[in-house]
Amino acid sequence: MIYLDHNATTPIRPEVLDAMLPFLQEQYGNPSSVYALGQASRRALEEARAETARLIGAASPDEIVFTSCGSESDVFAVMGAAYEAFESSGGVKNQIITTSIEHEAIISCARLLKRRGFETLFLPVDGQAAVSAGAVEEALSERTALVSVMHANNEVGTIQAVEPMARRCRERGVLFHTDAVQSVGKIPVNVEKMGVSLLSLSGHKLNAPKGVGALYVRRGARLQPLITGNYEKFRRGGTLNVASIVGLGAACRLIRTEGERHAQEWARMRERLVEGILAEVPDSHLSGDPVNCLPNTVHFCLEGIDGHNLVVALDMKGAAVSSGAACSSGAAEPSHVLKAMGISSDWVRGALRISLGWGNQPQEIEAFLKMLPPAVDKLRAANRISR
Amino acid sequence: MIYLDHNATTPIRPEVLDAMLPFLQEQYGNPSSVYALGQASRRALEEARAETARLIGAASPDEIVFTSCGSESDVFAVMGAAYEAFESSGGVKNQIITTSIEHEAIISCARLLKRRGFETLFLPVDGQAAVSAGAVEEALSERTALVSVMHANNEVGTIQAVEPMARRCRERGVLFHTDAVQSVGKIPVNVEKMGVSLLSLSGHKLNAPKGVGALYVRRGARLQPLITGNYEKFRRGGTLNVASIVGLGAACRLIRTEGERHAQEWARMRERLVEGILAEVPDSHLSGDPVNCLPNTVHFCLEGIDGHNLVVALDMKGAAVSSGAACSSGAAEPSHVLKAMGISSDWVRGALRISLGWGNQPQEIEAFLKMLPPAVDKLRAANRISR
Repeated sequence: MIYLDHNATTPIRPEVLDAMLPFLQEQYGNPSSVYALGQASRRALEEARAETARLIGAASPDEIVFTSCGSESDVFAVMGAAYEAFESSGGVKNQIITTSIEHEAIISCARLLKRRGFETLFLPVDGQAAVSAGAVEEALSERTALVSVMHANNEVGTIQAVEPMARRCRERGVLFHTDAVQSVGKIPVNVEKMGVSLLSLSGHKLNAPKGVGALYVRRGARLQPLITGNYEKFRRGGTLNVASIVGLGAACRLIRTEGERHAQEWARMRERLVEGILAEVPDSHLSGDPVNCLPNTVHFCLEGIDGHNLVVALDMKGAAVSSGAACSSGAAEPSHVLKAMGISSDWVRGALRISLGWGNQPQEIEAFLKMLPPAVDKLRAANRISR
Repeated sequence: MIYLDHNATTPIRPEVLDAMLPFLQEQYGNPSSVYALGQASRRALEEARAETARLIGAASPDEIVFTSCGSESDVFAVMGAAYEAFESSGGVKNQIITTSIEHEAIISCARLLKRRGFETLFLPVDGQAAVSAGAVEEALSERTALVSVMHANNEVGTIQAVEPMARRCRERGVLFHTDAVQSVGKIPVNVEKMGVSLLSLSGHKLNAPKGVGALYVRRGARLQPLITGNYEKFRRGGTLNVASIVGLGAACRLIRTEGERHAQEWARMRERLVEGILAEVPDSHLSGDPVNCLPNTVHFCLEGIDGHNLVVALDMKGAAVSSGAACSSGAAEPSHVLKAMGISSDWVRGALRISLGWGNQPQEIEAFLKMLPPAVDKLRAANRISR
């Protein structure tokens, strides 16, 4: 099978699984236990914390809070910062600013805060899914508790200029969060350079297991816990998921040494894909920012087809791609990202996302480029007949 | 090593790891993806959901929401029910009733709700850690959003009579939650018999991996999500942790077939431990309810020693036990459970928890009973000299 849906999830790399296995077997101690078996888990955990901090350029491992996934990191950041700012300001700070192209975790959590009396602003994007730093600045007020803008979009791959946004927030004393679930492991991510207060990342998007993530919390940034409890310096309860955290650490280490090389390989394959699809599939439109985009993500709108049917057709031919975010692909609703970009609903229906990752080879791209045009032709022909 | 701290965490059973491994390797599909690789994950996930539902006697697998741990299940239940009841009652229901011996997740989350304007009652317990159903009934009012009483205590093992409490709540239209993290897998747990609305369980307490748990949500019981998002019928976001959930399902299946036999074996070893310690360690006091208690948990207060030092001494001799809940063993604070039971602080310092589990053998108990008395003697002698 040709797996081209790495933005949905990635396989665990064998080196990562090897690092995890002892902690799924004989090294089962609770890292909070005082005896040797527990302390062995604790040491491995703290090494993984240091590796994670190092990858994203955090000043200290203490700034890493382990979570169960990117969504938890996102909701923890937004809810935690909102309630903390609201309380510590005596109810003055009751506004959240985010964008209309965020991941479902942020969108749904902002909506929940709205139900609970917070004001939530969803900033618009342009036709290439870019948020303007000026719009963020204009929206800021003394009532703003938090600004959350994703680093790279999961569907179209557009990378946001978070640096100037974070700087303006910092000048105003407002926390700035970025959902970097899709960017960590694909492009350089450095929290100091970016100047963010909070940053979410997820294990299963970077060849670590599902069920583990992290939130970077800059020293001094205050937020209420989401899963309350005694661990992680009172920032997160629940027995720490040692094996998966060790896996996350191992994956971070691999990215630090190999990430740049992989990204270059993906970028070359991405270029070939874009060129091949534009040449071989008529009425195909590349989405997102052609320059400021993830090196692994290709998104097209193909006129006159249903993306879901194309995914099924390509699956039968042996290729896994998607027609949108996995988190909404069960739903029949059209992509909120493409809608926010102003793409007509006719084109949105024919969305095709191809996302490259560890293990993909140029010959797979060539094989995929041979599969795609006849599959599109067949679906278009069927559509014409059924009309 | 003789591992006698199964209430802190348990090893993953080999059968459970075997069931998980394919999903840590080639079966890495996102269960929300439409192609075959994703759908294979989905099927495994739904089988695990059915196994989990079956173990606790849920009427439907739909009543199981997968979470990342017991703490998440607890906080999800309490926060979710509190906010939902508050909102749907137009602000009338603003009270949470719980007990003074709950797990840290519940205690800390009730405190957070208090900071946010909810009223929280912590019901007292008697000297054996039992909560009275009458006290629950008396505390109920038209302002009560939720009652949360743990099924079995993690430190002393006392089992609560949740059935009459749940019945009274049901009669008053109030949701009843029980934290069954320590009881599932050790005693029969049946949500229909118990009559609970919400029940938390955790994978790593029953020989499944760390990083997975579940919340039983009775059909019709409404609560707001904690980790917002599209999955689990909008009750929990975050890509589902397929491998660990499959592990939870496998562990539930094993408990369904072998659980009773194991519990009987533990009960016999428990009896031998109690008898042996009372006979060989002077000034030792059994804590908790001697009848209504978990078959695997033994808790003693040993006069004139520091429990932490005893844990360290026994670790050097090759046995892993604990002096309290793992989640607070980093903290120097005395156990809130023992304090709530009215045990004097002198005794509380000398707390010793021994918790049996899968794999423990009678000869390990005999070996432990040979280790313990000299270790206690030595610590007591050292204490006497240093005074």
